[in-house]
Amino acid sequence: MITKKVRIQFVDTDLSQRIHYSSIFRYFEAMDHDFFRRIGYPYKKIFQLGLDMPRVHVECNYLGNIEYDDELEVQASIIKIGNSSYTFSFHFYKEDQLVAKGCLTNVFIDRSTGKSVQIPEFIKTELAKHLNPVSV
Amino acid sequence: MITKKVRIQFVDTDLSQRIHYSSIFRYFEAMDHDFFRRIGYPYKKIFQLGLDMPRVHVECNYLGNIEYDDELEVQASIIKIGNSSYTFSFHFYKEDQLVAKGCLTNVFIDRSTGKSVQIPEFIKTELAKHLNPVSV
Amino acid sequence: MITKKVRIQFVDTDLSQRIHYSSIFRYFEAMDHDFFRRIGYPYKKIFQLGLDMPRVHVECNYLGNIEYDDELEVQASIIKIGNSSYTFSFHFYKEDQLVAKGCLTNVFIDRSTGKSVQIPEFIKTELAKHLNPVSV
Amino acid sequence: MITKKVRIQFVDTDLSQRIHYSSIFRYFEAMDHDFFRRIGYPYKKIFQLGLDMPRVHVECNYLGNIEYDDELEVQASIIKIGNSSYTFSFHFYKEDQLVAKGCLTNVFIDRSTGKSVQIPEFIKTELAKHLNPVSV
Repeated sequence: MITKKVRIQFVDTDLSQRIHYSSIFRYFEAMDHDFFRRIGYPYKKIFQLGLDMPRVHVECNYLGNIEYDDELEVQASIIKIGNSSYTFSFHFYKEDQLVAKGCLTNVFIDRSTGKSVQIPEFIKTELAKHLNPVSV
Repeated sequence: MITKKVRIQFVDTDLSQRIHYSSIFRYFEAMDHDFFRRIGYPYKKIFQLGLDMPRVHVECNYLGNIEYDDELEVQASIIKIGNSSYTFSFHFYKEDQLVAKGCLTNVFIDRSTGKSVQIPEFIKTELAKHLNPVSV
Repeated sequence: MITKKVRIQFVDTDLSQRIHYSSIFRYFEAMDHDFFRRIGYPYKKIFQLGLDMPRVHVECNYLGNIEYDDELEVQASIIKIGNSSYTFSFHFYKEDQLVAKGCLTNVFIDRSTGKSVQIPEFIKTELAKHLNPVSV
Repeated sequence: MITKKVRIQFVDTDLSQRIHYSSIFRYFEAMDHDFFRRIGYPYKKIFQLGLDMPRVHVECNYLGNIEYDDELEVQASIIKIGNSSYTFSFHFYKEDQLVAKGCLTNVFIDRSTGKSVQIPEFIKTELAKHLNPVSV
């Protein structure tokens, strides 16, 4: 499991005085990109290798109030690794309360053809280290 | 079914040269808010009545390339009406190709207590006119 | 002068219940891109010609309350045309009240070198048709 | 002077492969809000005191390439303190190159009347500690 502290920004809010629901995805993405940076495969390198990894599915359940300046702990795990895609799961805690949970699925593609390709072996190995299928 | 033409903006894109996946939710929201405006219950009025309708679930599947300046047709239906929540479904077509589909579920709450409340009867009636449970 | 009606979206707001100040730039951009589409030089074409036109300066003065669902009229003019750059000016009216005004300056560059280049002659001619230096 | 390291996120980019020009304002805002948090007057407290501080002016000059994953150092100073408003200036450095500079002016208002009010004395004192009028 990978954890990170995040702080909800002013720009993330809307007039309801809570987080705008789409802002949570900024934090999904930051964790996903952090992961690839940490394993020595930052997104830039993936891009330069002629690959890309567009999102094919994303979802989120909003379970509690998330407001400006809240400090949340995000707990992330890989919950599925396929041939060309993987799924990252995220749980957001405000103190001990689960306030949001969601996931995103990325698929590896060849940038020149746009077709899906196998996940590079090195990346698959790293993803597997964080595999936790029960944490859905 | 409610339909709308939308044009993907420059700011909606990212360096992959496609739409940034979170930008699609701007279009979900615009259709949701248009609906309430059209039935004479714009969001402002809902808010002034002491109610709010935060998102409790949102998801999207990305099925095709969506790029800057694409003109998409969005087809929206209500696919579920509960006591306090309803689910709006969206299909995005680029010419005849389904390029994205997703849904969002909003729950009506009392702003002073934060607790869920029944959907106001008038709104429920209007939602029911667009109910199409098969269009998931 | 080019005019356009825009409606402030829910996502454009923040917890102050007004527009988030950065959201106004989405409307600047939409007018800029609409202009190039209208003269037969949509941004895509400029990009394919090996050019780009990054922003080098942007500014905005917020003069009145802009809120969710407000319908604003935007009045846009070209206020300066240089060798490689031009400046677009925007005035936002809420009914008859000027609620925001600002401008953005774009410079034409060659995408392969990143260096500024002369504005293509055809575009310069079109820009000149909307030149109104007094409308700062 | 206040300094902060920031990293440009994927969502901050657009199809030009650079930062979208409006994304820089997220970093302006984060520094502004950090400042108030640090002096013991986080924005929430200002809001609860019945005050607000909307932006009345913002501007930015883009002087160099800012791309995904760039780590920038932001140097911020207060460059002007008026009766009811103050101006924060920001310089963004990529290694030793100045890639963007800009400023924002906020005005203190009474939330119930919407009228400008004097900057609370305690805040004015703290702002004055970072006053550096030459750093425009």
